[in-house]
Amino acid sequence: MTAPPTTGPASPRSGVRRLEHLARYDRPTIDAILDAGVVAHVGVVDAEGQPFVIPMVYGRDGDRVLVHGSAASRTVRAGAAGASMCLTVTLLDGLVVARSLFESSLRYRSVVVLGHATPIDDPDAKLAALLVLSERLMPGRVAEARLPNDTELAATRVFALPLDEASAKVSAGFSDDSDTDVALPVWAGVVPVVHGLGDPIPAPDLAAGIEVPPSVRSWSVSGPLSGGV
Amino acid sequence: MTAPPTTGPASPRSGVRRLEHLARYDRPTIDAILDAGVVAHVGVVDAEGQPFVIPMVYGRDGDRVLVHGSAASRTVRAGAAGASMCLTVTLLDGLVVARSLFESSLRYRSVVVLGHATPIDDPDAKLAALLVLSERLMPGRVAEARLPNDTELAATRVFALPLDEASAKVSAGFSDDSDTDVALPVWAGVVPVVHGLGDPIPAPDLAAGIEVPPSVRSWSVSGPLSGGV
Repeated sequence: MTAPPTTGPASPRSGVRRLEHLARYDRPTIDAILDAGVVAHVGVVDAEGQPFVIPMVYGRDGDRVLVHGSAASRTVRAGAAGASMCLTVTLLDGLVVARSLFESSLRYRSVVVLGHATPIDDPDAKLAALLVLSERLMPGRVAEARLPNDTELAATRVFALPLDEASAKVSAGFSDDSDTDVALPVWAGVVPVVHGLGDPIPAPDLAAGIEVPPSVRSWSVSGPLSGGV
Repeated sequence: MTAPPTTGPASPRSGVRRLEHLARYDRPTIDAILDAGVVAHVGVVDAEGQPFVIPMVYGRDGDRVLVHGSAASRTVRAGAAGASMCLTVTLLDGLVVARSLFESSLRYRSVVVLGHATPIDDPDAKLAALLVLSERLMPGRVAEARLPNDTELAATRVFALPLDEASAKVSAGFSDDSDTDVALPVWAGVVPVVHGLGDPIPAPDLAAGIEVPPSVRSWSVSGPLSGGV
């Protein structure tokens, strides 16, 4: 068995340190969070030791997370060079209102992936990865839109992070107020945060007669953001 | 005049590298994005050079961003030790659907803050900072909830990052399709991403007769998330 452990962290450094009872290390939980998100925050370190955290489009592809961006991007270049990275996805689900300020917090689901990026430079593999990314972000669009040409492929870099060192944290409950606080005449509860898609807005230069396509129509019901941000 | 420049980055490393035309360095833009967000992704580097990116509650307080967390948190300890950090806030506003996969992208607003954290350890200053944070996340709640006691204050650490080295990026338009692509019979446009608050859910242990308070009622209209995530 080479599957990562489901009951504890894959490595000491990928263990959740704070609020350990919220930690999850099983792949179904990790995968569901990754599949519900749209933007990851990717951390890299420059030569002077300064961290940079950049929002990037990502998509899970089996046991790895794909990230793509311009060949000119600092983060993409670091990823393509095999740098140590941290990729974090956070879904905000609610405001947890406690009787005390101290116990007030958020409902959220987050995944932290540590690892070294592997560049995907082979043109066929890169195109395949870009189609996976498109399918994750805009399901069905591959069948409708113009696919990347050679110039566009060359301007894009893709790298992958393995899910070997991934951890999740899920805060889904109410505040843990002490008995003394529960006895206070103060409201407590949760205000859910909801995310969704609005009505499609046609581009100003869209030719007359081109209707909203099946892909875009399907998103408002079951596409990205139905489960998170 | 000591105000940061509004037409360019405050330092070379805080300059936006990619899609420079989307860059904004003026404080009103930076402040508006920071004030609309709820969760920041904070990057720190461990002794081995591994970056960690952790979601944290934050709040702007004038020319600085306050971050708080448990005294046991890795990120908070790094912040309290004056580590180099990167704090990034991203608001997802829409899916930009182009005629080509290559030009498809996201509407977003993001801020990246680089700097050294300053711990706020003086008890009075720490309490004041926590009240600012509470007011940012849950406006009006300070007047209703139990305030932190000495034990809770000791278990919490707060640090501040100055806004000296901050940059913003705003993607608010449609796709920039070539004339050849515009001539294709393919739909293009934007699908807005919307965020909001659902109806408050009372805690299971809430005593009968305690109504939803004015603070919580006000959030659904004008509170956090009215302008972002």
